[in-house]
Amino acid sequence: MKIGFIGLGIMGMPMAANLVQAGHDLVTCDRQPKTIDGARAVAAPMDAARDRDVVISMLPDTPDVNDVLFGSGAAAGAMHAGTVYIDMSTVSPVATMDFARRLSVQGVAMLDAPVSGGDLGARKGTLSIMVGGSKEAFDHCLPLFQAMGSNIVYAGESGSGQKMKLVNQAVGALNLLAAVEGLRLASASGLDLETVLSAVSAGAAGSWMWSNLGSKIVAGDFSAGFMIRLQQKDLRLAREFFEQLGLDAPGTALTYELFTQALEKGLGLDGNQALYRLWE
Amino acid sequence: MKIGFIGLGIMGMPMAANLVQAGHDLVTCDRQPKTIDGARAVAAPMDAARDRDVVISMLPDTPDVNDVLFGSGAAAGAMHAGTVYIDMSTVSPVATMDFARRLSVQGVAMLDAPVSGGDLGARKGTLSIMVGGSKEAFDHCLPLFQAMGSNIVYAGESGSGQKMKLVNQAVGALNLLAAVEGLRLASASGLDLETVLSAVSAGAAGSWMWSNLGSKIVAGDFSAGFMIRLQQKDLRLAREFFEQLGLDAPGTALTYELFTQALEKGLGLDGNQALYRLWE
Repeated sequence: MKIGFIGLGIMGMPMAANLVQAGHDLVTCDRQPKTIDGARAVAAPMDAARDRDVVISMLPDTPDVNDVLFGSGAAAGAMHAGTVYIDMSTVSPVATMDFARRLSVQGVAMLDAPVSGGDLGARKGTLSIMVGGSKEAFDHCLPLFQAMGSNIVYAGESGSGQKMKLVNQAVGALNLLAAVEGLRLASASGLDLETVLSAVSAGAAGSWMWSNLGSKIVAGDFSAGFMIRLQQKDLRLAREFFEQLGLDAPGTALTYELFTQALEKGLGLDGNQALYRLWE
Repeated sequence: MKIGFIGLGIMGMPMAANLVQAGHDLVTCDRQPKTIDGARAVAAPMDAARDRDVVISMLPDTPDVNDVLFGSGAAAGAMHAGTVYIDMSTVSPVATMDFARRLSVQGVAMLDAPVSGGDLGARKGTLSIMVGGSKEAFDHCLPLFQAMGSNIVYAGESGSGQKMKLVNQAVGALNLLAAVEGLRLASASGLDLETVLSAVSAGAAGSWMWSNLGSKIVAGDFSAGFMIRLQQKDLRLAREFFEQLGLDAPGTALTYELFTQALEKGLGLDGNQALYRLWE
């Protein structure tokens, strides 16, 4: 397919490269001059959107997506009826539904398709991708998702991909806090940490976070799989979304507060398991 | 072995029955007149402790263990040098270490061996048992643990079993809050809950609580595997222990507060997944 790809960051770059690898015709666009072998680079989002079957964006936050779509030199004006626009950034579900409505007026179908799996998953093409929007557009774009990820979930109507991503991030952050707090208690009380890791993982308190990041904490490995600053951003989005729904969310309020403290302590570029170091 | 068993509650009764089943000679004691086929019942703890190789207690809380050991008609005075005392209740690690010190004066070795796995695990003999105390006493009593449980962990010196249990409970409660909060967000945002259950369980936010209790919540099943009131009690113990260690524990402070609210709302006898109903 003829694809425009906007946003060549630590995630977007390998995702776009995997699409080229899969044989697609790519035009790429980034604020910085970056190129991918086999793809043509342009400076303005509108030039990455013109005469393309599918336009994909992978951007830091909600205002960036708004700018790329509707700002100066923006992409929306260059999309024609029948273009599918896929936003793979993790951004506000409410803003996403608004973007989709505005684009539908000009005959453009939008999919929200945030990912998880980090830059390693992006490079290996093993991302988890949660997709919201029309089922027809999803089916049409499935080969593209399969070039970038290995666990593709159709989550439902527009915004559902972003909503599912925020559920996932809120749950994961609390599981991580659980692992951090449990290991702090174990360490301070003089237990053998390897024994605790193994005993807890076998039972009702087991989790992916405990097994994977707990063992990194015990090994003193605070390198980034998923960075503190991104976890904090996702929790901000989750918290905003809880508020928009009028829900009391004490767990997410707490993890947002703690990850914000970790960011302020200068741990932003460390792995999210470095939440442990907030108490050092 | 000649065993005295004190405390025939919902857990103690099937645990004692499994020891009888394994061929041991049991004398049992409970505040209420309860009997087990093949065992002799006595009224006072001291009568369950006299001339026994091993004395086991399975009681609700720290003061109950203190009473049974050192109160009127109490068991400690009847134990002889060489008796092993095993407390399988979930109680304060600090009090446990004190009990062990006091008993050691009279030549009694104490093991702290709290369990997890609920009354179903107690009946099936598949409990997880976390054991603190001397390795020699642990090895001596291993056949007894194996008659009651299937996952036996030697946690370390006296108190370590209780410490490990509290770590486990603190971690599990936060994972449960994660599942509850994630499902509340998913439900309020209109996502298909079966799709969310499956998508989240496959990734970095997966946990035993999410997979097992999350699906019960979605099915509207709030029956008790592990009761709210017991979860609340364990969180109280964990919170006290954090304080004794001088640790700030914001996650456990929050889960303790929420489970206390659930108790006050009359959910104490429901399963711990009924935390979900706190917001109904």
